[in-house]
Amino acid sequence: IMNFINDDLSNLIKNINFISKKTALSIQNRNLILKEIAQEIRRRSQKIIDMSHDDYKEAKEKGTEYSLLQRLKLDANKIESCAKGLEKLIDIDDPIGKTEFEKELDNGLILTKKTYPIGVIGVILEARPDAFLQIIGIGIKTNNFMILKPGTEAQNTCSYLMAIVHQIILKKQVPLEILTLLHARSQIDLLLKEDQYIDLIIPRGSKKLVEYIQQNTNIPVMGHADGVCHIFVDEINDVQQSLEMIMDSKVQYPAACNAVETVLINQSVASEFLPLLVSRLDQLRVTIYADHQVSKSLNRAFPLPESWSIEYGDHSISLKIVNGLDEAITHINTYGSHHTDSIITQNSINAKIFMQQTDSANVYHNCSTRFADGYRYGFGAEVGISTNKIFPRGPVAIEGLTTYKYHLVGNLHTVSDYADGTKKFKHSL
Amino acid sequence: IMNFINDDLSNLIKNINFISKKTALSIQNRNLILKEIAQEIRRRSQKIIDMSHDDYKEAKEKGTEYSLLQRLKLDANKIESCAKGLEKLIDIDDPIGKTEFEKELDNGLILTKKTYPIGVIGVILEARPDAFLQIIGIGIKTNNFMILKPGTEAQNTCSYLMAIVHQIILKKQVPLEILTLLHARSQIDLLLKEDQYIDLIIPRGSKKLVEYIQQNTNIPVMGHADGVCHIFVDEINDVQQSLEMIMDSKVQYPAACNAVETVLINQSVASEFLPLLVSRLDQLRVTIYADHQVSKSLNRAFPLPESWSIEYGDHSISLKIVNGLDEAITHINTYGSHHTDSIITQNSINAKIFMQQTDSANVYHNCSTRFADGYRYGFGAEVGISTNKIFPRGPVAIEGLTTYKYHLVGNLHTVSDYADGTKKFKHSL
Repeated sequence: IMNFINDDLSNLIKNINFISKKTALSIQNRNLILKEIAQEIRRRSQKIIDMSHDDYKEAKEKGTEYSLLQRLKLDANKIESCAKGLEKLIDIDDPIGKTEFEKELDNGLILTKKTYPIGVIGVILEARPDAFLQIIGIGIKTNNFMILKPGTEAQNTCSYLMAIVHQIILKKQVPLEILTLLHARSQIDLLLKEDQYIDLIIPRGSKKLVEYIQQNTNIPVMGHADGVCHIFVDEINDVQQSLEMIMDSKVQYPAACNAVETVLINQSVASEFLPLLVSRLDQLRVTIYADHQVSKSLNRAFPLPESWSIEYGDHSISLKIVNGLDEAITHINTYGSHHTDSIITQNSINAKIFMQQTDSANVYHNCSTRFADGYRYGFGAEVGISTNKIFPRGPVAIEGLTTYKYHLVGNLHTVSDYADGTKKFKHSL
Repeated sequence: IMNFINDDLSNLIKNINFISKKTALSIQNRNLILKEIAQEIRRRSQKIIDMSHDDYKEAKEKGTEYSLLQRLKLDANKIESCAKGLEKLIDIDDPIGKTEFEKELDNGLILTKKTYPIGVIGVILEARPDAFLQIIGIGIKTNNFMILKPGTEAQNTCSYLMAIVHQIILKKQVPLEILTLLHARSQIDLLLKEDQYIDLIIPRGSKKLVEYIQQNTNIPVMGHADGVCHIFVDEINDVQQSLEMIMDSKVQYPAACNAVETVLINQSVASEFLPLLVSRLDQLRVTIYADHQVSKSLNRAFPLPESWSIEYGDHSISLKIVNGLDEAITHINTYGSHHTDSIITQNSINAKIFMQQTDSANVYHNCSTRFADGYRYGFGAEVGISTNKIFPRGPVAIEGLTTYKYHLVGNLHTVSDYADGTKKFKHSL
């Protein structure tokens, strides 16, 4: 029976791929769908809330951890902000079919670079119905076909949301294949094998899950396993606001991938700044791990961090004294996860070198690491943050889910005319 | 001893990565290096030609195949065109440090997206000293660090060219690590393991080599294993020029990845066009493989192609009659390699649908598939053609070897001010 189901999924995915190539929805149609989803989730708000509370209760009984439980539960505010998020997507210019450049290679031979959807995208995400809706919204806006597997704990709510969306899509005579919900965890492994028919996998969730996916598929993977973010305190001008910025990076939402894990303190400011930093961290009940030099300097025995690459995700932090900018950058590039790193300094040369040499998607000067986010960047929404070296990198939103083709239109032009010198390329823009 | 050498290479690559992050050459410096390489290869032209002839003789004695031998040999013309190619790169605007956008998230909180080199790139290429020089040029222009392994047959010439380049680099006090030449084939496997220190692998060469590399590394791979390109003859207006265009796509340079392998002929034009096409192919001594319908229609027994996904790379071609646009697109998306596909038609609606639905990096209307090339696109040069779905896709040149970072500069801004409503994002451009 299992084999039969597997063959089914494989055929389903093949079919999704086939239909995706035939389906170019007009921007009017895509925006109308977004509008109706927003309306419909507002209208069915109470039912959605009830479903999410059922999911919550069930998960709680199973002993699910607190932070996950919190993300499960929807309330009227969260639903309203989901609806607003979808409506915001409507205002964004059509990302598909844009001409990125047009060039006349020669008389009557016109090259254009045009944007397209990526195609079929597999999204494996946490048990968060609000994120599920946001990702669906971005998928529709970009005309991508998405196969989604949300965390099992949110399965009932997500199934209900998907039914709402499918009903709207059906009325618009758009193929239902544009959005597919997977129900079983075991289907993830089948998904990862379909590199011929799936163009991109976006895994969100635990480091373990993301690493497993990265290592078990030939499909390109966009995302991050770790968020080991740093602040390097190079020079201090405004002590109080610097402390606020560091606290913001740590405690404003410690479970986020863009929360800071390690603060590196320049030796030259350590004796002045370190006691204040530690006292503020103590105040906020942040558990401090530190190197010997910090312990010695404060005459207090902090435990060493288990590793300088650790992502606590809670009220814990690593502190280390470094001998200037160069050591800080090397530490970050060695132990960090190329996500988001920030320098506190008034020295503009040091800031410039820090941003040039720190090999991370987001490099900051005098601001909280927590700003690394598609919404805060004004991208409208995000599907995740990529620590890939190449596009898409950093917060990935609408533009990150597009690709392009080169269109060349001629009048039966041949290459031989240019090879033998009969004609010459103009290459004019 | 082998283990010792392996450890050496691993340390070397780690060191290359470390130095690459510290090395931001000014555009003046990069252009000057390009200029001096061009001068120096002109000055040493005869010696380079002699070296390449030695390589040629040695390879010929070993029974190397003809097409490879041809690519080995340099002459004065080829060297001059290499030098000119390097000089052309000088004229291209600096691709590094460009601000792709700047956005004021709020007062004093400025987000910029800035272009950067990708970092460390491993290039495994054919025994072609001219391609070797072109890729080095693009690497220097984009400030990337490259580890190159050219085909063994060109090893002597490439070593000599690398010595010339290293001498120039040394004089400019640029770290020699910016360009590293590997000498042993066995080193490729070691390279593929260094996913922590190598950001991109560009394999050029046989399908087997590229597939091996794609399947044996966690490093992103840019390139193509196959070039199974198609022409779909939908409607014919100018018979003679249509034949010229198809011949150009096939015989102008059959070994190229953008040469056509399969011609699909719309049933509606088959009886008129097919006899003319076959007669022209016969004239040019192209071996024809075809489906039963073609054989039947011409009353001549063509052999069936071994597969519809075959890349001949020589004077052979597959012909097939299809029942209109839809079948043509499905055939191409099923059996093609997402490289370059062209439609011959006067029907602009069909052309539009073809370009929309054909899932290839280059989609053409009324022009030879052989135009798919960085130089012909006016990109100045190319390192290869990517059939990846996501950037870089199509002919990859300067821009394809860049990435970006998000810079955020503030005044100790915190996220909590925006979370609690004290401040609001402006997101103004």
